[in-house]
Amino acid sequence: MLVVMKKDATQEQIDHVIEAIGRLGLSAHPIPGAQRTAIGITGNKGSLDRNILESLDGVLEAIPVSKPFKQVSREWRQDDTVVDVAGVKIGGPHLVLIGGPCAVESLEQVRAVARAVKAAGGHLLRGGAFKPRTSPYSFQGLGEEGLRILAQVRDEVGLPVVTEALDPDGVGLVETYADMIQIGARNMQNFSLLKRAGKSRLPVLLKRGMSATIDELLLAAEYVVSEGNPNVVLCERGVRTFANHTRNTLDLSAIPAVKGVSHLPIIADPSHGTGRREKVLPMARASIAAGADGLIVEVHHQPERALSDGHQAIYPDMFADLVEQIRRLAPVVDRDMHPPVEVPAAG
Amino acid sequence: MLVVMKKDATQEQIDHVIEAIGRLGLSAHPIPGAQRTAIGITGNKGSLDRNILESLDGVLEAIPVSKPFKQVSREWRQDDTVVDVAGVKIGGPHLVLIGGPCAVESLEQVRAVARAVKAAGGHLLRGGAFKPRTSPYSFQGLGEEGLRILAQVRDEVGLPVVTEALDPDGVGLVETYADMIQIGARNMQNFSLLKRAGKSRLPVLLKRGMSATIDELLLAAEYVVSEGNPNVVLCERGVRTFANHTRNTLDLSAIPAVKGVSHLPIIADPSHGTGRREKVLPMARASIAAGADGLIVEVHHQPERALSDGHQAIYPDMFADLVEQIRRLAPVVDRDMHPPVEVPAAG
Amino acid sequence: MLVVMKKDATQEQIDHVIEAIGRLGLSAHPIPGAQRTAIGITGNKGSLDRNILESLDGVLEAIPVSKPFKQVSREWRQDDTVVDVAGVKIGGPHLVLIGGPCAVESLEQVRAVARAVKAAGGHLLRGGAFKPRTSPYSFQGLGEEGLRILAQVRDEVGLPVVTEALDPDGVGLVETYADMIQIGARNMQNFSLLKRAGKSRLPVLLKRGMSATIDELLLAAEYVVSEGNPNVVLCERGVRTFANHTRNTLDLSAIPAVKGVSHLPIIADPSHGTGRREKVLPMARASIAAGADGLIVEVHHQPERALSDGHQAIYPDMFADLVEQIRRLAPVVDRDMHPPVEVPAAG
Amino acid sequence: MLVVMKKDATQEQIDHVIEAIGRLGLSAHPIPGAQRTAIGITGNKGSLDRNILESLDGVLEAIPVSKPFKQVSREWRQDDTVVDVAGVKIGGPHLVLIGGPCAVESLEQVRAVARAVKAAGGHLLRGGAFKPRTSPYSFQGLGEEGLRILAQVRDEVGLPVVTEALDPDGVGLVETYADMIQIGARNMQNFSLLKRAGKSRLPVLLKRGMSATIDELLLAAEYVVSEGNPNVVLCERGVRTFANHTRNTLDLSAIPAVKGVSHLPIIADPSHGTGRREKVLPMARASIAAGADGLIVEVHHQPERALSDGHQAIYPDMFADLVEQIRRLAPVVDRDMHPPVEVPAAG
Repeated sequence: MLVVMKKDATQEQIDHVIEAIGRLGLSAHPIPGAQRTAIGITGNKGSLDRNILESLDGVLEAIPVSKPFKQVSREWRQDDTVVDVAGVKIGGPHLVLIGGPCAVESLEQVRAVARAVKAAGGHLLRGGAFKPRTSPYSFQGLGEEGLRILAQVRDEVGLPVVTEALDPDGVGLVETYADMIQIGARNMQNFSLLKRAGKSRLPVLLKRGMSATIDELLLAAEYVVSEGNPNVVLCERGVRTFANHTRNTLDLSAIPAVKGVSHLPIIADPSHGTGRREKVLPMARASIAAGADGLIVEVHHQPERALSDGHQAIYPDMFADLVEQIRRLAPVVDRDMHPPVEVPAAG
Repeated sequence: MLVVMKKDATQEQIDHVIEAIGRLGLSAHPIPGAQRTAIGITGNKGSLDRNILESLDGVLEAIPVSKPFKQVSREWRQDDTVVDVAGVKIGGPHLVLIGGPCAVESLEQVRAVARAVKAAGGHLLRGGAFKPRTSPYSFQGLGEEGLRILAQVRDEVGLPVVTEALDPDGVGLVETYADMIQIGARNMQNFSLLKRAGKSRLPVLLKRGMSATIDELLLAAEYVVSEGNPNVVLCERGVRTFANHTRNTLDLSAIPAVKGVSHLPIIADPSHGTGRREKVLPMARASIAAGADGLIVEVHHQPERALSDGHQAIYPDMFADLVEQIRRLAPVVDRDMHPPVEVPAAG
Repeated sequence: MLVVMKKDATQEQIDHVIEAIGRLGLSAHPIPGAQRTAIGITGNKGSLDRNILESLDGVLEAIPVSKPFKQVSREWRQDDTVVDVAGVKIGGPHLVLIGGPCAVESLEQVRAVARAVKAAGGHLLRGGAFKPRTSPYSFQGLGEEGLRILAQVRDEVGLPVVTEALDPDGVGLVETYADMIQIGARNMQNFSLLKRAGKSRLPVLLKRGMSATIDELLLAAEYVVSEGNPNVVLCERGVRTFANHTRNTLDLSAIPAVKGVSHLPIIADPSHGTGRREKVLPMARASIAAGADGLIVEVHHQPERALSDGHQAIYPDMFADLVEQIRRLAPVVDRDMHPPVEVPAAG
Repeated sequence: MLVVMKKDATQEQIDHVIEAIGRLGLSAHPIPGAQRTAIGITGNKGSLDRNILESLDGVLEAIPVSKPFKQVSREWRQDDTVVDVAGVKIGGPHLVLIGGPCAVESLEQVRAVARAVKAAGGHLLRGGAFKPRTSPYSFQGLGEEGLRILAQVRDEVGLPVVTEALDPDGVGLVETYADMIQIGARNMQNFSLLKRAGKSRLPVLLKRGMSATIDELLLAAEYVVSEGNPNVVLCERGVRTFANHTRNTLDLSAIPAVKGVSHLPIIADPSHGTGRREKVLPMARASIAAGADGLIVEVHHQPERALSDGHQAIYPDMFADLVEQIRRLAPVVDRDMHPPVEVPAAG
């Protein structure tokens, strides 16, 4: 923390600030300048509130210097974390592709999409049983019945399943049926949910909130990790801006930014990130080119009949095309495609 | 819904869209133009997804025409809703002022602040027992002990209490001790929490999310109302923008905008809305001048010792000054100050 | 400037940074901390680029401490600047109201609107002869003919005129016919235009850019002032955000923010700031309540026939109502209404 | 345009709107619905202001249906425009790389950087002689002397030159010395400058404004094209959002969005788009993967000594690495690298 004094701060005010810092058990390092005095603080462990200092007379500003997150930081752990989802390893040398419908609608639907995803070379199946919908009058998902469908299709097709939980109780249900817990953008700062996910044995897919900074995303991950669950995969899915040509603005620079300060893997969601089917493929390529560890993509065999977000779901043949393009792109970023999943398909 | 066809759409494609609309049980009204054809749709009840139409060949865009919210809309109910919080009426002719600390820290602290708020002419006491904090290492609130403190101070001082719940279980606890449930900005789309609050007998204070549109705020309120709880007060507390001179950008035009389309009351939070003590007073005045039904303000008797957000809390004498200024401002907007609360103070 | 070293920076790297600072003619003040070393810099006069320091090995970040603007800062001049526009004083104890059409369309139109503005108690006449239009196919203004109309109406009605210049040549034309040069939001960083306005004898009304920070707005004003023209009035007119219920998001906290760091007057534009007629009045009140020195409002006697932005222009009777409400509001912010202009009306 | 009537609009109001549409020389197509009436309008040529309709009694909203730009639209011209810059063809099958310093500082500097750019495989040389700087106290560029240096280095090294003009007079100077006129983000809506560039024989590189929508970018291009200059290359260079991990948020989805609605080429600027050297390479790759026709990148042989923006300039060896990676990436997007420029190097 650096305390910047006002130009007209008196020596008495400066001394008072130095004393206050001392009372907090910290060390003050005054830097008298031609125009004003600044005071460096050392000895704090990240929990010092700016306000305590900014409330003192003569103080212009207190500027934090250390980053607030710890266990998720690259300084805490140098090597990349690799998260294992039922055998699929996210964050290592292999790129991972997650595909599936926005919402679970029926066994037939999930089965058809899952087979297409598997056939095209996808590694994980996505699909929502609990849907966070802006309107209470929109389809809210099939609930536990949807989870059962996902579990059945996983056994039949042989793809591990990632699906969203909306509240602490939902985490328990997802643990019963699936392989990875998704926490959606709207819940990125639902701290009760994060803490519950931090006590789970399942890995967590944590999506960036619509107006979350990178620091806030990493602190949300820190909630999960600090509860004992180190297996967090981050996901860039677009932020909210004035731009109106896409549903959200996919902020791909978040990928190298996260890679620089954290050891956690990060994937991208070009479906929600754009909200438009025809932009999924170019933004999927761009995500991998920017350094993403994988992609999560909405796929639907009949998007025009989808009960939610059908306009951003791609057709199975577009997904196959996407997989092929990512395969060609992988060597440019010194990666390759994750080998096929070896989960024994019961069906 | 209006479907706009591409310029080069064929008659066959247009006919196909008209047919599809018919299959959905709706009526199609083609409008052939010089440049392109548009097709109006009537008969839908707000649940039609654009994607079903945008997926059809030859369609450029489907433009929604109706607003998606219902029971909270001004069209559903013409007269302003007045929400009664233990005798304090929000949304009627009287302006209501809510004051108190960001977080409950101790009995002494809450008591000191509550007495100051009451003495100055405030109507409700705020204070968080469960705190949504960006970092897991920040003070998370006293929990149920904090609720007990609030209840004791309410009885002593005679101010009804509004306090935040972070999850469905928390709503039950807040019901036990307080008079109004606050749902914070980060939880505006925590739909499990909204549904639980919709089943409560207590009124709800619902804060706008950091990147929520007015439609999304009203749909979040619709979640509460559609579960059976009509007593929702909205709160503008600032949105996230590029502007860096305040913590958030207080979007006061949301107030007349909400008043235009909804019958629900709306108050403003100039403390979170600015994040800076010295801007609270001007923005409090501006909020009332824009038409707000009241204010929620952070007050602390020793903000430099506050465990959270002290730099935005105002001193008791500043709160007294604020109440006085609002009292003078009220007639300009054809309002007056809510009379003193008559809750019998047990202490 | 404060240089923050990486945690693993070597002593050699630290020494190298200290040396580099010395070579720049500045003083280095190392602050060794438990986790990392920071180095304070004194002696610089605001022109030091961060990049020179951030390029050095071992440096994590260079954090600027001083504000970059000078002559417009409150530290440069303690007292509020009062700008005199042909006898109308903006920034002193009196509130100033500017009204008029978006664009000059005809002598009859400007005359009708100006008479209404004058009769209602307005102080200055606005109206664009050169219009910055998003589309090249929209009405671009009457040009010099429009300026002549404004000058004639000023003489007839007795209101000084503020009108926009779009380029350096336009400033010369505005100087010939009007009393104050407006620089629009789109041109806030048109530095050739700012420099030319800085050489003018007329005062300047400088609007905040759609995505400009307060620092950038003040630096744009600094361009004008540093060329020799101290008479700059700033204007908050809304910024661009995700919010879609208004055309722009009026950021009223900019008003106390500017007042805190600068001595320049600042007014608000609730017409462009909202883009909707029915929101002009509440946001006009809110602007004054937030501390604005005045307002600039679009008024049209026949807005449904306006050639540009008619949906945000208010009717003459709404303007009269606005003036009356501002008059009642003024004492709450310790102001009063500027006395009527005494420019002799030639007509 | 579609006019949506209020629910409670009377038949008289509806008839009045239909009449008004007729008086404008347009055709009205009423669509009576269960809840409200909408009225489609045909016959307009893009110049109809919404406000004329929204001002009428009983009207809720007027929704534009047609896009406002014309000559730059894909509907106007199906095939991609290829812009020829002294033999370098932007927008065809070949990817084009533009490199050079932010600002021209000296002959030695430009020569050193240009040789490195040429040697690495770059096609065009960038460098600013007129610099738009936020502060009037920052280095403003060498002016015409800088243009002379660029021209000399072009002859010596054999790379055509793109450089920025800040005002109409500057366009004349750039025409004398360079091969392509850059219009910067801050001037995207400097309409005097756009019109002057539209009269030039040189191609134009038009950067997206910091808060410009795609429609506004295309309308800015329409200003140039409608004055007679069809040779416009667009450039995505980042927009302003709340995100603070980069200087701007590079909005790569703008690339497929522009490609969908316009025939103009579009390149990306990962230097300004991120503002951080270490993010230039990943975002350069991502830009090409998203479909960009080329890149403009800041390169400096001694960025720590750069007079502006040195922290985002990459070193010559990083540029060589970038060229190599783009070369490998090109086939994935069905492109190849533009062949070396054959401008005879005089030096």
